[in-house]
Amino acid sequence: MEYTFGQISIAVFAITGVLAASNKVHDIFGLVVLGVVTALGGGTIRDITLGVPVFWMDDFTYVWVAAATSLTAFWIYRFFSSTYQLLLYLDAMGAALFSIQAIDKSLALGHIAPIAIIMGLFTSIGGGIIRDVLSDRPNLLMRTEFYATPILVGCVFYSTLIYFVPSFALSNILSVGLIFGLRAASIHYGLSMPSWLLIKPFIK
Amino acid sequence: MEYTFGQISIAVFAITGVLAASNKVHDIFGLVVLGVVTALGGGTIRDITLGVPVFWMDDFTYVWVAAATSLTAFWIYRFFSSTYQLLLYLDAMGAALFSIQAIDKSLALGHIAPIAIIMGLFTSIGGGIIRDVLSDRPNLLMRTEFYATPILVGCVFYSTLIYFVPSFALSNILSVGLIFGLRAASIHYGLSMPSWLLIKPFIK
Amino acid sequence: MEYTFGQISIAVFAITGVLAASNKVHDIFGLVVLGVVTALGGGTIRDITLGVPVFWMDDFTYVWVAAATSLTAFWIYRFFSSTYQLLLYLDAMGAALFSIQAIDKSLALGHIAPIAIIMGLFTSIGGGIIRDVLSDRPNLLMRTEFYATPILVGCVFYSTLIYFVPSFALSNILSVGLIFGLRAASIHYGLSMPSWLLIKPFIK
Repeated sequence: MEYTFGQISIAVFAITGVLAASNKVHDIFGLVVLGVVTALGGGTIRDITLGVPVFWMDDFTYVWVAAATSLTAFWIYRFFSSTYQLLLYLDAMGAALFSIQAIDKSLALGHIAPIAIIMGLFTSIGGGIIRDVLSDRPNLLMRTEFYATPILVGCVFYSTLIYFVPSFALSNILSVGLIFGLRAASIHYGLSMPSWLLIKPFIK
Repeated sequence: MEYTFGQISIAVFAITGVLAASNKVHDIFGLVVLGVVTALGGGTIRDITLGVPVFWMDDFTYVWVAAATSLTAFWIYRFFSSTYQLLLYLDAMGAALFSIQAIDKSLALGHIAPIAIIMGLFTSIGGGIIRDVLSDRPNLLMRTEFYATPILVGCVFYSTLIYFVPSFALSNILSVGLIFGLRAASIHYGLSMPSWLLIKPFIK
Repeated sequence: MEYTFGQISIAVFAITGVLAASNKVHDIFGLVVLGVVTALGGGTIRDITLGVPVFWMDDFTYVWVAAATSLTAFWIYRFFSSTYQLLLYLDAMGAALFSIQAIDKSLALGHIAPIAIIMGLFTSIGGGIIRDVLSDRPNLLMRTEFYATPILVGCVFYSTLIYFVPSFALSNILSVGLIFGLRAASIHYGLSMPSWLLIKPFIK
């Protein structure tokens, strides 16, 4: 069940990656590479930093799913384009699932909660940041929408909850729900960082 | 023999790296770093992803060759500039050798063919992509020339051929020849992706 | 003592990271991430390349210091802004300490001096380069000020000195002093690469 959700998240990330990169990258090779990078890049950074085998080398299904979805997105992008709003919500669900899974993986390796939270962030936002660097787009660190903040809040919430709630599954569902809820609200209402959490540049 | 070719490929990649970066990076330190990164960056990513020791830490000759060639390219760049067309062909040969070597290395580590093909791509195009990101140039994913596609075709060809041809050396020569031939043709005729393999951007 | 200096260097790097990124990145999340990346990114690349556990996963204090300092820099950036000149000198001291520490770490792992010198450079300039790539600023390879050159000179000096001077501590102090002195001179006098070490671009 969780595995199926994981693969669906990979597919959604790949589609959003192709769509996002498509105004700077134009051929099938570049777009499929960037779709795959968006879907698998975050988890790859996580595993390399953790010093464990990269997940898609153990189970290549992830790459097939990411590549096949990216190819499909290339061919029928008009369809996906018209469903972009829906994709944002699916992407929010994928980011929620990815970050909580990464926390579970890191804790299982014996790491402390703060490291696990960092890995949750790496996994959910790393792929998109690499895509944006490779396709010369402003990455999410440079934008002020609520994307990473809901994930950070949910990761901290989950790391705390598992010490108090006996059921891992319940903590998992509550935390995924919290991240998705916060992110969905920020998509729906177009929320971004309030001005008191913004800085005015001073070095020219 | 293969080792010598490998070192020559490193040298050629370093020269093309210095030449390519030189319109954005201007001092000797930056250019030598980018020459070395172009030459060794792809293999470094490959080894880190594979979880094996980085090749130039086992045999530092690679770094000396890359650094010495980059320094030379800095001092006599007018000469190399006038031979740029020749360098493109040498670069094609280097990319062909690198990608096939990376497949051999990955298969020898027990990985499946698709992973080996990904490593072949990482090794041959990774260094140039890092160079372009570091020197703020459009990387090859953003260009539509035939660069990565011949390599991908050759890598798939090689991975298939070794199951049918008893001689590794013969498969190797045929595949390097295929990649070089396709790439040389695309340089000579200025080929790029046909329009049906291009996407029109739709997200502004 | 050395540990305390190391943590102070982390803090200084984090502050300079927040200040440098603040003209392209505007919200608290992005700025704290980039402060932490500036402070810890170089050492992370070093450890991943060396194939050893990443230092901040063994001692998470580094992350707390980097994150707390970045947060502080976000809130009182006007104060830090007015002390920017002082920060440049502290940054020079931090880079000196980081590079020499990285050489010690690499040599202790049994690597040869040239590898150790490369690791010294990775550690001291890697974090700033990643920050500049992520915040779309010209990175130091593209600028011609004397930043990396003093570090390179000091690293080569240190690697030679330890074979002749019986006291590691003395070699350490002399080399940190050399790097800091060269860098401080180049800040004070606004030195940059002399024109004979610059290239004129020739590929448009």
